[in-house]
Amino acid sequence: MPGDLGSRPTLEGVAAHAGVSRATVSRVVNGNVGVRAEIRERVQQSVRSLGYVPNRAARSLVTRRTGAVAVVIAEPETRVFSDPFFAQQLRGISRELSAHDTQLLLLLLEQRRDYDRIGRYLSGGHVDGALMFSLHTDDPLPAMAAESGLPTVFGGRPGWPGADREPLPLYVDTDNRGGARQAVEHLLERGRRRIAVITGPLDQTSALDRLHGYRDALDVREADPDLVAHGGFTAEGGERAMAELLTRSPTLDAVFAGSDLMASGAVRALRAAGRRVPDEVAVVGYDDLEPAAWADPPLTTVRQDVEGMGRMMAELLLRRLSHEPGRAPAPGSVPGSVVTPARLVVRASS
Amino acid sequence: MPGDLGSRPTLEGVAAHAGVSRATVSRVVNGNVGVRAEIRERVQQSVRSLGYVPNRAARSLVTRRTGAVAVVIAEPETRVFSDPFFAQQLRGISRELSAHDTQLLLLLLEQRRDYDRIGRYLSGGHVDGALMFSLHTDDPLPAMAAESGLPTVFGGRPGWPGADREPLPLYVDTDNRGGARQAVEHLLERGRRRIAVITGPLDQTSALDRLHGYRDALDVREADPDLVAHGGFTAEGGERAMAELLTRSPTLDAVFAGSDLMASGAVRALRAAGRRVPDEVAVVGYDDLEPAAWADPPLTTVRQDVEGMGRMMAELLLRRLSHEPGRAPAPGSVPGSVVTPARLVVRASS
Repeated sequence: MPGDLGSRPTLEGVAAHAGVSRATVSRVVNGNVGVRAEIRERVQQSVRSLGYVPNRAARSLVTRRTGAVAVVIAEPETRVFSDPFFAQQLRGISRELSAHDTQLLLLLLEQRRDYDRIGRYLSGGHVDGALMFSLHTDDPLPAMAAESGLPTVFGGRPGWPGADREPLPLYVDTDNRGGARQAVEHLLERGRRRIAVITGPLDQTSALDRLHGYRDALDVREADPDLVAHGGFTAEGGERAMAELLTRSPTLDAVFAGSDLMASGAVRALRAAGRRVPDEVAVVGYDDLEPAAWADPPLTTVRQDVEGMGRMMAELLLRRLSHEPGRAPAPGSVPGSVVTPARLVVRASS
Repeated sequence: MPGDLGSRPTLEGVAAHAGVSRATVSRVVNGNVGVRAEIRERVQQSVRSLGYVPNRAARSLVTRRTGAVAVVIAEPETRVFSDPFFAQQLRGISRELSAHDTQLLLLLLEQRRDYDRIGRYLSGGHVDGALMFSLHTDDPLPAMAAESGLPTVFGGRPGWPGADREPLPLYVDTDNRGGARQAVEHLLERGRRRIAVITGPLDQTSALDRLHGYRDALDVREADPDLVAHGGFTAEGGERAMAELLTRSPTLDAVFAGSDLMASGAVRALRAAGRRVPDEVAVVGYDDLEPAAWADPPLTTVRQDVEGMGRMMAELLLRRLSHEPGRAPAPGSVPGSVVTPARLVVRASS
């Protein structure tokens, strides 16, 4: 390895300056024992006079600890910053990691090919663990997490091929199926009979589980295709889906949307079509993020503790990391996956 | 260094498996020349059969390249995700970095003490450079950037002590002073005579420069203290500041707010006080982010190309990095700081 790689002082430079070996400098910098006091003092003086900053990449070869955790959201950066769900999940993660003096690194991506780069970074020894959420069944992320050897916690029930094999992935989810069932049962109790559903992307377990909850409540094996439309978890998608449903099923009297954003789009489409909410068409959303309460009319929705789920993901990972490296934890000493409850919140839209 | 540091296969393990030295494995893994074909093949087979992932921390000791850039926004995570300014700046950065296959790492922070951790991560050899924005004059970030030796580009004109000393910091800014002057001149042309100003935090150069632009337009050395209030660059702050101004100067007929968020808060306060916008009080914002056009009434504002500024920050940094390491670039081969223009956009609020 050449001695001068750039403008920053190197370990080799310190070794030459202090007249000791590279290994001795490394031991002093990493606080290891076995270095005589006068040698330690001489090395520390060289470190100070050269302005050497111990390279944590080098140190991580010894300690395998970087003090940082990667967060990957399997969505383009534009969605990460426009959907309040992600901000709230990140809030919980950020607060928990900060409380444990661990750095949150949000790895942003724009397009499919960016995954390769993310895989390289995860495998590069720059982080101690990873949190991944909003995964789709064909995402390469779970395989990357496995390859990197990094302890990983997922947000949402794993739905990718092989997720049911040992070692089971660690995850935090909410009771999406039960929450959706409550939403649709509420519409039935309100006397609604033609209840449509707007789903998120069905390659995501949260969207799929909410569709299953809809079917549970209606007690049907398959939903009436005229009453199902896909809204892609965005407001624009919800608006388009609602317009489609009104064309296909003009007599519908209610709609359950799998997210508040899609529900807000549905309300816009209903208003554009001259249908009164809730008199003619009742609307229920999902998430209970801030915009649900501000909406006009305020949205009936299913509350999940998004920030709390973020916090729990971080907590699970930190507990996993405290048992690393390389040793199997004692049975029962590491908590397993968590599924949090969902609860209907009734407001004016239903 | 011990041979087995954890459950992941190590360079040492590969060396033992292939019956070669650690240095030979390192040369093969880093694609260096000088290794005979049959040895290279044997090492590659060991890498495959052990499932060894080349440790980029180790590799970065040789290449000093991680393929990643840190982005630090000197605000708590809640503001990063609630102010559309940051989303748009990050969009430009993310697109530019992605186009150059460079990973964006957003380092989130919650509180003051998190800066120490960020400094450690930046000095740790995990990134090739840094982009920093929304700095306050007392932020420790510029000193950390200097200490880390990382090439750094700042968003916004540097205002910290010592920023005018060589080597001058590299930054991208917009003409805040000129933009604010245009805004206030427009209000004067509309016949307004009692023009108040709502400022951002005056320890940020963007807020300070906009206040100077207000004074330029009114041709005064100091603003009338009864017409100045501080809104902290948030909607709530703008609302509070406007309420204060109405109490102190009930005859005001216009307000220039240093951001669209503060302007939207000001409109709320004016409405609550029964003042019509723009008939009784004209309002002008700053930024021209999406919410400005959607506001009721749509906001007159000063447009700055926030996404473009993010793009330029990333571009400047990538060009700096392509001249690293350790060699001074040829004069004129690396572009300097950039100040982009600002332009008044007249809508219904003035």
